[in-house]
Amino acid sequence: MVDKVKIEQAVRLLLEGIGEDITREGLIDTPDRIARMCEEIYGGLGHEADQHLLKQFPVENNEIVLEKDITFYSMCEHHLMPFYGKAHLAYIPNGKVTGLSKLARTVEVYSRRPQIQERLTVQIADALERTLDPKGIMVMLEAEHTCMTMRGIKKPGSKTITTVTRGAFTEDKELQKMFLSMVKG
Amino acid sequence: MVDKVKIEQAVRLLLEGIGEDITREGLIDTPDRIARMCEEIYGGLGHEADQHLLKQFPVENNEIVLEKDITFYSMCEHHLMPFYGKAHLAYIPNGKVTGLSKLARTVEVYSRRPQIQERLTVQIADALERTLDPKGIMVMLEAEHTCMTMRGIKKPGSKTITTVTRGAFTEDKELQKMFLSMVKG
Ligand SMILES: Nc1nc2c([nH]c(=O)n2[C@@H]2O[C@H](COP(=O)(O)OP(=O)(O)OP(=O)(O)O)[C@@H](O)[C@H]2O)c(=O)[nH]1
Ligand SMILES: Nc1nc2c([nH]c(=O)n2[C@@H]2O[C@H](COP(=O)(O)OP(=O)(O)OP(=O)(O)O)[C@@H](O)[C@H]2O)c(=O)[nH]1
Repeated sequence: MVDKVKIEQAVRLLLEGIGEDITREGLIDTPDRIARMCEEIYGGLGHEADQHLLKQFPVENNEIVLEKDITFYSMCEHHLMPFYGKAHLAYIPNGKVTGLSKLARTVEVYSRRPQIQERLTVQIADALERTLDPKGIMVMLEAEHTCMTMRGIKKPGSKTITTVTRGAFTEDKELQKMFLSMVKG
Repeated sequence: MVDKVKIEQAVRLLLEGIGEDITREGLIDTPDRIARMCEEIYGGLGHEADQHLLKQFPVENNEIVLEKDITFYSMCEHHLMPFYGKAHLAYIPNGKVTGLSKLARTVEVYSRRPQIQERLTVQIADALERTLDPKGIMVMLEAEHTCMTMRGIKKPGSKTITTVTRGAFTEDKELQKMFLSMVKG
């Protein structure tokens, strides 16, 4: 999917644009390195997490499953600068669960593209809903945006928190409180 | 110095290269936004900190001056990804001192360009040496590199520490220990 030749050309143009000497030793491999990096950090583009989440197992216990503190890194689509933090995913099974690592993979698929945090949160919830049809879903993301800390308004340490609820978590505020106390506890 | 037209062209190429739709709403202003951002984050390129550091005042007390925990953000020249952390600058005056904010400005001038941490550390020490001719200098930088945490080897939380000493700080290991205990204390 990634056109490395185009990316290398882009990086050379950008370096020239900021007034750098693209022939100096430290920069000589930068276009190639960034092209390889883009395959990794934008590797989720055009993919869905369904293939992962569809690895499922039947269960009888339909209590909350929470995977918390999933470290994630994404790229802000407004500045192409990293934002990163922790994702917390909970669902109430409807007779079936998915592998725990698949929850982390879901976060990764939707992180690895130019993103905004709100959409990332929704896309994770949508994927869980589509594949597991659970009785309830809650997704919370806490992140620091380098476009807020290192430039512009420059507020290091400020955090952006976004949540999405579905089903039982939307209807029952007590469930939301439980989620929050499990995440913080 | 910054050629915004070239940068905008570069960003469009990069977005195309990773397979993005550059006409979608979230990305439409990204080239212009990044061009403006580059003026800020690469704004130190071609500048030296001397003009700031040459604002000086005579002193009689020639004991260590330490400015610690100066938050800094720079861009790794190998991946054009942020690295950030704290800088600690100490010098032993030789009859004159500079304004404290000028030490932070020095860190900023050399951070705001494609960098590697070791060179950033040396450039800060060089500027202090050139302008203040102090009896000793010690500079220490502690930083997290997003190119190490979000891609490649993926080691979130790992830190890179670099130091440069000059004059009395090079000769006298006790002074280095004092610096470290003042920084950590
Ligand atoms: N809701 C939301 N906003 C975001 C995200 N990432 C991100 O850069 N933004 C915001 O997008 C907006 C872009 O605004 P802008 O077009 O005026 O660009 P700018 O760089 O001049 O803005 P700034 O200097 O205020 O950051 C900024 O307010 C920035 O904080 C995100 O994930 N979610
Ligand atoms: N000494 C030093 N090395 C750095 C800095 N920033 C930075 O990316 N590097 C290193 O530069 C090297 C570039 O290596 P490479 O040409 O094989 O590129 P790569 O992206 O494939 O390497 P990687 O995947 O190991 O990070 C990496 O080892 C990376 O960690 C820095 O500030 N100082």
